[in-house]
Amino acid sequence: MRMPQATVETRVRFAETDAMGVTYHGNYLPWFEMARVALLDQLGCPYRELEKQGYLLPVLETGLTYHRPSHFDDRVRITVTLAEKPRARLHLTYKVERGDELLVEGFTVHAFVSRDFKAIRPPEIVETALAKAFGPA
Amino acid sequence: MRMPQATVETRVRFAETDAMGVTYHGNYLPWFEMARVALLDQLGCPYRELEKQGYLLPVLETGLTYHRPSHFDDRVRITVTLAEKPRARLHLTYKVERGDELLVEGFTVHAFVSRDFKAIRPPEIVETALAKAFGPA
Amino acid sequence: MRMPQATVETRVRFAETDAMGVTYHGNYLPWFEMARVALLDQLGCPYRELEKQGYLLPVLETGLTYHRPSHFDDRVRITVTLAEKPRARLHLTYKVERGDELLVEGFTVHAFVSRDFKAIRPPEIVETALAKAFGPA
Amino acid sequence: MRMPQATVETRVRFAETDAMGVTYHGNYLPWFEMARVALLDQLGCPYRELEKQGYLLPVLETGLTYHRPSHFDDRVRITVTLAEKPRARLHLTYKVERGDELLVEGFTVHAFVSRDFKAIRPPEIVETALAKAFGPA
Repeated sequence: MRMPQATVETRVRFAETDAMGVTYHGNYLPWFEMARVALLDQLGCPYRELEKQGYLLPVLETGLTYHRPSHFDDRVRITVTLAEKPRARLHLTYKVERGDELLVEGFTVHAFVSRDFKAIRPPEIVETALAKAFGPA
Repeated sequence: MRMPQATVETRVRFAETDAMGVTYHGNYLPWFEMARVALLDQLGCPYRELEKQGYLLPVLETGLTYHRPSHFDDRVRITVTLAEKPRARLHLTYKVERGDELLVEGFTVHAFVSRDFKAIRPPEIVETALAKAFGPA
Repeated sequence: MRMPQATVETRVRFAETDAMGVTYHGNYLPWFEMARVALLDQLGCPYRELEKQGYLLPVLETGLTYHRPSHFDDRVRITVTLAEKPRARLHLTYKVERGDELLVEGFTVHAFVSRDFKAIRPPEIVETALAKAFGPA
Repeated sequence: MRMPQATVETRVRFAETDAMGVTYHGNYLPWFEMARVALLDQLGCPYRELEKQGYLLPVLETGLTYHRPSHFDDRVRITVTLAEKPRARLHLTYKVERGDELLVEGFTVHAFVSRDFKAIRPPEIVETALAKAFGPA
């Protein structure tokens, strides 16, 4: 079995840099999000679809370690991995690379909630996708 | 009669600067918004309240002229003016200043819409506020 | 002669949306920037290169007209056009489209400045690129 | 001895919300930054000053735990604490509160670097400030 994984690429926007001349540290979180959205697509449960069905998947926890800065116009690659079959919470890990350099590592933890932010069971479409990815429970 | 006007102050965040070492040009729009929110408060129709009642006030048009850059940690003052009693659309003008230097001038045009973005009449609370500010029609 | 033009595509990030459920109006400016960067690449004078040579190209003026909102995960296309050979200032126009719907139109005006924000002549590399695109003066 | 601590207040901007109707999780990092800047001011070594002297203080690591969401126009209070006298690295902890509700907790780790991102000893002004805050080594 292969762990679900997705990779996206982006080019650092000038808007994402700061007066240190590097990508502002907070701007890696939208990049993590891009990779996460691609992973959900790939699993067959697009976030857009979940949202329409009334499910939200907010970030409960996140952590980032910055090894090297990135700069305007750098092409960076963000890879997200779902290392284990989620129970109540979804744990994802990320790495941001430029060529063969590791720039940033991180993680996010999520739970499914309803529109009023009450914890709820993951939607059927997600259960099916995960069973397919990790095998039945 | 005095034109409705509000002034807010902010301190340039590092997050708002870019690799030119100045405030990113797009980051003046959230500052305009801060002043606009203060103006609506002052008129007696807080945006938060309008939103709860199902009204949105999206930006239909905006324009900015940049005279001088601002930098990290600068204290800037944003003033918004409602120059004339709005009919279908709300026209607001803005200036951003640092001490006695004019940094940026701009405007926004808004219309009230419902949550599904259909044009609607302004809520009663706004009509009342405007009649009070500009005199009855 | 064909006017220099470049098109980029992007997918609306959740980070770019606001509590109205649409793309925040200020977040179209980084999209304009993406198209502008692609245009400079295509003309043979990448912004990254200009920056290394000590040239900055700040926005002096901008304007945007919002026709329709965009939403999370929409695929949008941004096209930038350099309509006429620039003299002291560079005038660019933009449109943002989703499929065959026009969402936003806008413009930016730029001038070349040195790192301390003094107006300077455009670098040789730009003069050459423009002469090639528009024909000699 | 009292641990160095600073508190700032901010009002959630519409620009900081996302389509879930809450503050986008990445937008807490600029709030942490606001508190950090206030702490450095209070210690007598403003970041603006450090920057002028050629010192940068990038984030090497960060972590956030989200307990409750915040919404447009909420007044939130961010408190930063320097729990122990820093050696090579500066460890800061944060909490974001609304009234007496704890919304978010987090930390950042920093090191002083030169403009080309080489690790360097903290500037004299910082050593003095820390000795004053924590007592001599």
